[in-house]
Amino acid sequence: MAAVTHFTIEKEDCKGAQAVKKLPLRQFAPLLIAMVGLPGRGKSLLARRLSRYLNYTGDNTKVLDISDYRRKHMEKYASHEMFRADNLPAWRLRQQSFREALEDAADWLQKPGHHVAILDGPNVSRSQRQEIYDLVYGQLGFRIMFIECVCEDPTILERNFKDILQYSADYCGMATEQALTDLTYKMAHYKAQYESPSLGSHWELPCPMVKLLDGGYGGIVAHGVTGTKESKILAYISVPKPSQQVIYFSRHGESEFNLIGRIGGDAPLSPRGRVYSQALAKHVHALNLPALQVWTSTLQRTKATAANIQAPQLHLHELDEIYSGDCESLTYEELQERFPRELALRDHEKLKYRYPQGESYVDVMQRLVPVLTQLECETNVLTVSHQAVLRCILGYFLETPFDEIPYFHVPLHTIIKVTLKGYNYTMETVKMPIECVDTNRAKPTNCSVNRSSEDALLTVPAHLDSLSNLNTLTPCT
Amino acid sequence: MAAVTHFTIEKEDCKGAQAVKKLPLRQFAPLLIAMVGLPGRGKSLLARRLSRYLNYTGDNTKVLDISDYRRKHMEKYASHEMFRADNLPAWRLRQQSFREALEDAADWLQKPGHHVAILDGPNVSRSQRQEIYDLVYGQLGFRIMFIECVCEDPTILERNFKDILQYSADYCGMATEQALTDLTYKMAHYKAQYESPSLGSHWELPCPMVKLLDGGYGGIVAHGVTGTKESKILAYISVPKPSQQVIYFSRHGESEFNLIGRIGGDAPLSPRGRVYSQALAKHVHALNLPALQVWTSTLQRTKATAANIQAPQLHLHELDEIYSGDCESLTYEELQERFPRELALRDHEKLKYRYPQGESYVDVMQRLVPVLTQLECETNVLTVSHQAVLRCILGYFLETPFDEIPYFHVPLHTIIKVTLKGYNYTMETVKMPIECVDTNRAKPTNCSVNRSSEDALLTVPAHLDSLSNLNTLTPCT
Repeated sequence: MAAVTHFTIEKEDCKGAQAVKKLPLRQFAPLLIAMVGLPGRGKSLLARRLSRYLNYTGDNTKVLDISDYRRKHMEKYASHEMFRADNLPAWRLRQQSFREALEDAADWLQKPGHHVAILDGPNVSRSQRQEIYDLVYGQLGFRIMFIECVCEDPTILERNFKDILQYSADYCGMATEQALTDLTYKMAHYKAQYESPSLGSHWELPCPMVKLLDGGYGGIVAHGVTGTKESKILAYISVPKPSQQVIYFSRHGESEFNLIGRIGGDAPLSPRGRVYSQALAKHVHALNLPALQVWTSTLQRTKATAANIQAPQLHLHELDEIYSGDCESLTYEELQERFPRELALRDHEKLKYRYPQGESYVDVMQRLVPVLTQLECETNVLTVSHQAVLRCILGYFLETPFDEIPYFHVPLHTIIKVTLKGYNYTMETVKMPIECVDTNRAKPTNCSVNRSSEDALLTVPAHLDSLSNLNTLTPCT
Repeated sequence: MAAVTHFTIEKEDCKGAQAVKKLPLRQFAPLLIAMVGLPGRGKSLLARRLSRYLNYTGDNTKVLDISDYRRKHMEKYASHEMFRADNLPAWRLRQQSFREALEDAADWLQKPGHHVAILDGPNVSRSQRQEIYDLVYGQLGFRIMFIECVCEDPTILERNFKDILQYSADYCGMATEQALTDLTYKMAHYKAQYESPSLGSHWELPCPMVKLLDGGYGGIVAHGVTGTKESKILAYISVPKPSQQVIYFSRHGESEFNLIGRIGGDAPLSPRGRVYSQALAKHVHALNLPALQVWTSTLQRTKATAANIQAPQLHLHELDEIYSGDCESLTYEELQERFPRELALRDHEKLKYRYPQGESYVDVMQRLVPVLTQLECETNVLTVSHQAVLRCILGYFLETPFDEIPYFHVPLHTIIKVTLKGYNYTMETVKMPIECVDTNRAKPTNCSVNRSSEDALLTVPAHLDSLSNLNTLTPCT
C-alpha cells in the first residue's frame, strides 16, 4: 500500500541498558484508538471516516468492529435480550467478542507498516477500557487514545437510529417497527451499563481522551493529547461532518487539447465542450439543490464549463490538473518520441511516477487533502475538475486501492453523484448525450523501457492530428 | 516566501447574481486568530509558536502584538496605572492600540499570499471581540477563530511571570521587585475587566472558539471548529509544549564519503569520525541531562555516531539525509561532468530544486514536520542527523528565511544547543577539537546553465581523490 506521506519508524532500542535507567521511546509507536459510547452516537461512521482519511494520508489504518466478532458467534441476531447486563451467557459472548477484536487489533498493529487500529464498539465499562490500556500501552508499549461519542441532540439521534435500522447487519430482514422497539431496548440496556469516562483530572487513564459532543456540532473536549498522529486525529474529528451528504463531480467539457490528444496545458473548450457546459447547467438547475456551490480549478476549461451555472463559485489551484512539467502539452506520440523512457517508467508505476519538473499522482493526492477534508463537511457542492484530479478525489471517497486510482474511469461529459449511504459512499453517473473523445489510456501490457513504440502507443485513444480537421468529427447532438 | 504546501485560493466570485441568492464562499478565505486571556497565561508564546509552525508549513502568518502598538504611543512604560479600568486617557490609548493592531492585521490579510494573522493581546472585553468579529468576518468576509488561554496552575503561572519580568519590553531596566509588584497590580486590573468568553451554546459569537487550559496540560475545549486551517491550528495547540526547553543537535561524525567529497550514500565513519563519536558521548554524558533521548536517522553514519551514548535511541527515516536520486554518491566534479544543467539549476534555486528521482529541500522540510512538532514537545533530546536535514530543522526553530535554509552553516564535529528563551529559540555551538573536512559548498556567483566547469566548481570544498590517500590527512587530535 503506497503512502502519501512517508512516516515510518524503524525500531526502538536502548543502548547501555546496564548503565542508565531507560524509558522505552514510543513517540512514534503504532496507535490504538478505542471508541466509547452508546449505540447510535455516531461511533461507527466516525471510525470509518477517520480510517478513510488516515489511510489516504499515509497512516495505514484498520477498523475492527466488535459487533462483527459478536455476529461470528451467533447464527442470527435474535433480540435486545443479549445486551442485558444480567444475561450472563450473552455477556460472556460479548466479552469474548471484545477480546477477540482487541487481540486482532493488537496483532495487526505489531506488523510492520501498520500504523493505526480503531477498535469500534461501545466499550462502556471501566474494566474494558482498563483491559485495552493494559494490553496495548502496558504490554505492547504502543500508543492509545480514547474517543467518546456523546450525543443528546434529538434530531441527530433520530437520524442515527434510522441509519442503524437501515444499514445494521443485526436488523437486516427485521420489520421496521420490531427493529425500532428492539433498538430502544438495546439502548436502555447499554445505558444501564454505561460508565462514562469523565475528563480533566478525573479521566480514569493516563492517555489521551477526546469527547465529541453531538457529532462535533456541540464541540469537543480533549485531554492529554500528545503525539503527531493523535493531534492529526483530533484535528480531523473536531470538524463536524454531515451524516446526510451528496456531492457532485464533473470533468470540464471536451477541450481543444482533448480533441488533438494533448495532455495538460490550458486550452479552451471545443464546440462540443461548450454544448456540454450548457447541458450541465441545465441538468444542475433542474436538480434544484439547496445552497448549491460550484468549485472549479483555475484553468479556463473548468471555469468555462461551470460558467452557466447560477451558484457561488470558488476557483482553487488545488483542483488544477496534474502538472506534467516538461511533458506539458505533448501528445502521447510526442511523449514516446521525446521521452520514451519516461513514458515507460510512468506506465510501470503510474501512481508514484513524477513527470520531470512535474507532479505524480501521489503529489496530487497530497495537495488535495485540504480540499477533501473541506468537501467532507459540505453537501450539494459540484466540483468541476480534471481527469487525474477527479481520480484522486473519487478514490478518496470510494476508498479505491491506491494502485487503481490512476486507472479510475472518469469519462468526459458525465455527471458523477457521490452519496453517503450508511458508513460508505456510493457513486452514480449520468452520461450526457453529447459526443466527445475518449481520453482514457489503459495500462499497456508491455511497460518495459525497451519496448517498441508500437507497444507503447497501443492503448492511446484515437484523436485528431490538428484542429483544422474539426470537420471530421461526429456532429454535436 | 516559499511555501512547503501550496494552499492558495485564486478568488471568490458569484455567478448569476441577479437570479439566485448567493452566499459568499469563504471556506478557504484568510483567517484571523484573536488571542484572549489575562497577562501571563502563555498567549504570546503560543502565538509565536503557532506562527513559526504555520509559516513553515505553508500558511504565511504574521503576529500583531497589541502591546507593541501601545508602546509606540508611550515614551517609556511607567506603571500598572495605565491598565486601570477607570484611567480614561490610558484606556483610550489602549483602545487605540487595539484598533491599530486590528486594522493592520486586516490590511495584512487582504494582501495576496497572506493567510493567517494572529492578534496577540488580552482582548478581555466582549465589545472588543465583537469589534474584531464585525470587521474581519462581517465586513471583510474572512474567517475568524478565538483562542482563550486560561491558566490556574501556580507552577506554570510563576514560570510565565518570571518570563515576563525577564523578557517583556515594559520591564526592561526596572528593578525585579518593583517589576513584580507592578505586574501583580496589572494582573488585578485586567482581572477586573475580564469577561471570559464561555463555550457551548453560550459562546458569544458564531465562530470557532478554543479554550486552552494550563497551556494545554489541563486539556482543551473547542466549539464550532470548521475549516482546514482552523483544525490544523487546533491540532497544533492541543499538544502541550514545555516553556523551558533545551534540545541538542549534531551531524554524524566525518564519514568516508565526506573525505572523498561524495554526496548522499550510506558510508561508514572515517577514523576521525569514530573519534568524534567517542568525544560526543563523553561531552553529552558530562552534561548529565535528565531523561536524555537520542534520535538518529536510519543511516549507519548517524547510528555509529550516537552508538556510545547511554540513552534510549530512536532511528527515524524522517531524519535521513536529503535523497539525491540519480545523483547519489557522486562528487560535485562528477555531477558537473554528468549533469551540468542539473547542478546549475540547483545552484540557481537550491530550496525548491529537486534531484532527478530525488528530493528537494522543500520535500525534506515537509517530511520533517511530524518530527519537528514532536521535538517541540520534548526537552533533552539529542538529534544526530545530516547537513541538509539539520539545516531544515534549525531553520524551523530559528525561523530562518526559507531561501537561506539551504546555506545554513552546520559544520561537522560540532554540538549545537538550541534553547527556548522567552518566545524565541537561540543557538549555541561547541566545536569539538577533532579535525574534519569542510562539506559546505557556498553558492557560486555564476548559476547560469551555460557556465564553465571552472565556475561551477569554484566553491567545491577540498577533498581527497580516494580513500587510499588517507595518510595525507591532518592527523587526529
